[in-house]
Amino acid sequence: MHNIDVLTRHQATAIDTRSKQVTTRDLEKNRDLTLGYDKLIIATGAQPTVPPLPGITLENIFTLRTVNDALKIKLCVDSGRVKNAVIVGGGLIGLEMAENLALRGIKVTVVELLDQILPPLDKDMAQLVQKHVMENGVEVVTSDGVKSFEGNSDGAVTTVITGRQQLPADMVILSIGIKPNTKLAQEAGIETGTSGAIKVNKRMETNIPDVYAVGDCAESIHLVTGKPAWIPLGSTAAKMGRVAAINATGGNDSFQGVLGTLIVKVFELNVGKVGLSEREAMKEGFEVESAIVPAGDKSHYYPETKDIIIKLIADKTTKKLLGAEIVGEGMVDKRIDIIATALTFGATVDQISKLDLAYAPPYAMSMDAIIVAANVLGNKLEGKTVGILPSKVAERCDRSEDFVLLDVRTEMEYKGGHIKGSKHIPLDKLSSRTHELDRSKEIVTYCRAGLRAAHAYRILKNAGFHNVKYMDGSILAWSYGLEK
Amino acid sequence: MHNIDVLTRHQATAIDTRSKQVTTRDLEKNRDLTLGYDKLIIATGAQPTVPPLPGITLENIFTLRTVNDALKIKLCVDSGRVKNAVIVGGGLIGLEMAENLALRGIKVTVVELLDQILPPLDKDMAQLVQKHVMENGVEVVTSDGVKSFEGNSDGAVTTVITGRQQLPADMVILSIGIKPNTKLAQEAGIETGTSGAIKVNKRMETNIPDVYAVGDCAESIHLVTGKPAWIPLGSTAAKMGRVAAINATGGNDSFQGVLGTLIVKVFELNVGKVGLSEREAMKEGFEVESAIVPAGDKSHYYPETKDIIIKLIADKTTKKLLGAEIVGEGMVDKRIDIIATALTFGATVDQISKLDLAYAPPYAMSMDAIIVAANVLGNKLEGKTVGILPSKVAERCDRSEDFVLLDVRTEMEYKGGHIKGSKHIPLDKLSSRTHELDRSKEIVTYCRAGLRAAHAYRILKNAGFHNVKYMDGSILAWSYGLEK
Repeated sequence: MHNIDVLTRHQATAIDTRSKQVTTRDLEKNRDLTLGYDKLIIATGAQPTVPPLPGITLENIFTLRTVNDALKIKLCVDSGRVKNAVIVGGGLIGLEMAENLALRGIKVTVVELLDQILPPLDKDMAQLVQKHVMENGVEVVTSDGVKSFEGNSDGAVTTVITGRQQLPADMVILSIGIKPNTKLAQEAGIETGTSGAIKVNKRMETNIPDVYAVGDCAESIHLVTGKPAWIPLGSTAAKMGRVAAINATGGNDSFQGVLGTLIVKVFELNVGKVGLSEREAMKEGFEVESAIVPAGDKSHYYPETKDIIIKLIADKTTKKLLGAEIVGEGMVDKRIDIIATALTFGATVDQISKLDLAYAPPYAMSMDAIIVAANVLGNKLEGKTVGILPSKVAERCDRSEDFVLLDVRTEMEYKGGHIKGSKHIPLDKLSSRTHELDRSKEIVTYCRAGLRAAHAYRILKNAGFHNVKYMDGSILAWSYGLEK
Repeated sequence: MHNIDVLTRHQATAIDTRSKQVTTRDLEKNRDLTLGYDKLIIATGAQPTVPPLPGITLENIFTLRTVNDALKIKLCVDSGRVKNAVIVGGGLIGLEMAENLALRGIKVTVVELLDQILPPLDKDMAQLVQKHVMENGVEVVTSDGVKSFEGNSDGAVTTVITGRQQLPADMVILSIGIKPNTKLAQEAGIETGTSGAIKVNKRMETNIPDVYAVGDCAESIHLVTGKPAWIPLGSTAAKMGRVAAINATGGNDSFQGVLGTLIVKVFELNVGKVGLSEREAMKEGFEVESAIVPAGDKSHYYPETKDIIIKLIADKTTKKLLGAEIVGEGMVDKRIDIIATALTFGATVDQISKLDLAYAPPYAMSMDAIIVAANVLGNKLEGKTVGILPSKVAERCDRSEDFVLLDVRTEMEYKGGHIKGSKHIPLDKLSSRTHELDRSKEIVTYCRAGLRAAHAYRILKNAGFHNVKYMDGSILAWSYGLEK
């Protein structure tokens, strides 16, 4: 109908860019077929990294990339013999697999070499996800790497040996990352970029005339840093493909770049990120201010309203937003997409706080969660408030630093669980009980979600306390345990 | 706790801007109280329009603005005596009331003076909502106005007399609009703007020093037209209030304006709008191109994926987006907010089609619905395709104009219901059956959602047909009846 020939079971083996020909191997008939082209689009994709560890070729060790991979995994699970599964790598694919295997009744352990799951996120946000994953019965081991695999006499995997332990495993999923398939292109003299993927300009053209590259094998530009980036995603591939097709057929279209936008469902949580994490922003040399703000995804009185926890990252100098991470059971994707759009146009935090977003109780608070978060971050950028991230508070507690952690929630909330070593003065008593606090010490206020902590901050500042901070996101963003 | 005095049951009766004093009436003790101010913030809100019609003062005729209004309506419904209710005005409040009364088992009729409900929307999109409302058992009467109300011997309303009919009514809700409360301000010499609301600058300052106005009594700027606009909404009021508070306390903040963003739940439909409708854009003098595009709100294979129908409106000259209207059971609010953010930064249609929005199957298609819609509109703006809105096709059918309406769906789909008078050639047969079509006539292709119609358009153009269009949104956007 569309006059397109599709050759399946044919492998492209060589590109001759001078004679404009592609040699392909017919895998059924075992013979070569040479195809001429006017325009060539390379879309060779990427493939999973498989580490050369002892035992890696044992049965029931899978990667997940193709439909065939998925069918093999399903067959293995359907056999009913998988009691224990180990997932190597705590990224998006790893966590999606963890959820779905756990829902099939399998005991799942995720092993991650870094000190956090979900490497694109900051550790504080990733820890909220890790807590949720573990509450759903999945074991998560961080800062530990797989050393080898052991099997039985049938050649099937039975055990995963890590740096610290031995994990029983009837099945292993390797999800430690992918790498771009660039061999065919490189052999034809097509350049790759600093990221290792094929270098293209905004028209998706490679360094060779009439040759385009798109999708997971192609490099892109990060719109926040302006630097080359390789962030392979289906949504990007679809857009790149359209741009290349338009240009290859005589049109003129361009693809400006990406924001590293991601979203993943992990059990009941929606987890999203766009732009730079705080860690990435600092690495890029930005002077960073951030805020963690929990907020309802709908009006608080509307049924089914759920919390989301928003982390916004901004550049102190320009006051432009650099990125966002959002975690929660509520509508995360909407806020990620709002921020993706704002980042595309270089929005400042102030501009985000003034967006005319859609409001009705079934959809948002009268000030949408993202506007509230922008206001909180704006207050910090303007020096109106001084916050401290929960992760920093936890570090300081671990080091037994000398400061007052002040819980300003109600008596009942405090008794229900509070941070170890915290002092308790309910917000409504604070004005009259400031004499109980040592003015020479630093005071860090906290509550459930941060609003009362900020009020307490203001009351103490107005009462002449100099060294006050409030804890961003408070208990809702605290993943370091409570005591009763 | 916050050191704020709140005077309830006190009515502000006069402002003296020279002596900086407000006279208030203590309604309990029936005496005046004069309050001095350094800074004054006027937030007098708005009130419902009540037309001076015969019988307007009968019992059980309500407006819905305050909590007290809501309590009175609830009391009346709870009495169990309301069998028939008439809602005057088919705007957002009217439709929300229609839904909630219908869900209480009351027979509801909505009477609207205009030829469509939801006046901020274009008629074609509003008709999709009207169809849904009527399918849920609510009667909708358009192009008809209320002339008077009749009551029984107890003084309670029994009948609504319109220009064309008599409607039984045990209860009437007036929701024909609101007007800003500006009397207090005007009497003090505070200027109102062209919209009738209090004129303010971006700092929310009125023409009188140290006097601010915020919320439903204050005017704003429409960010697309740059002109004064009065679009009273809670979300805007909250932002204005914050800006005025910051400025009144020595800070410096500004509110740039609004986009008329709205969202409303009507039974199972989510209905949203942002920026200008096509009608409004034409009235403002823009040369307009628009597209109606149905698309899934999630990946098509993901459970619970639902259609949304997107109308995008753009300026032909600058290719900037001017507005969007979205209707559907799927996630409408997310796409409205993406467009609200894009409009704030003057985005072109092309820029929207390249946004790096969050993709995973539970959240979006790999190209989000809004990107698909921007691509379709982009094709029209570039002259690659020529579309025609369903409303225009319906008009031409009504006038029995001579053109071929070509249904390219499958045999089964065609037999399930098609537009009266249409010719049927399935898309996969079209290339070989073009001889059945009269080349001298205009051909308008349609399918279910528009994709196959656009393919058919391309096939016919490639086959040398000159006068071809495809129908935007096709059957999914067609609300004018089908025949089998």
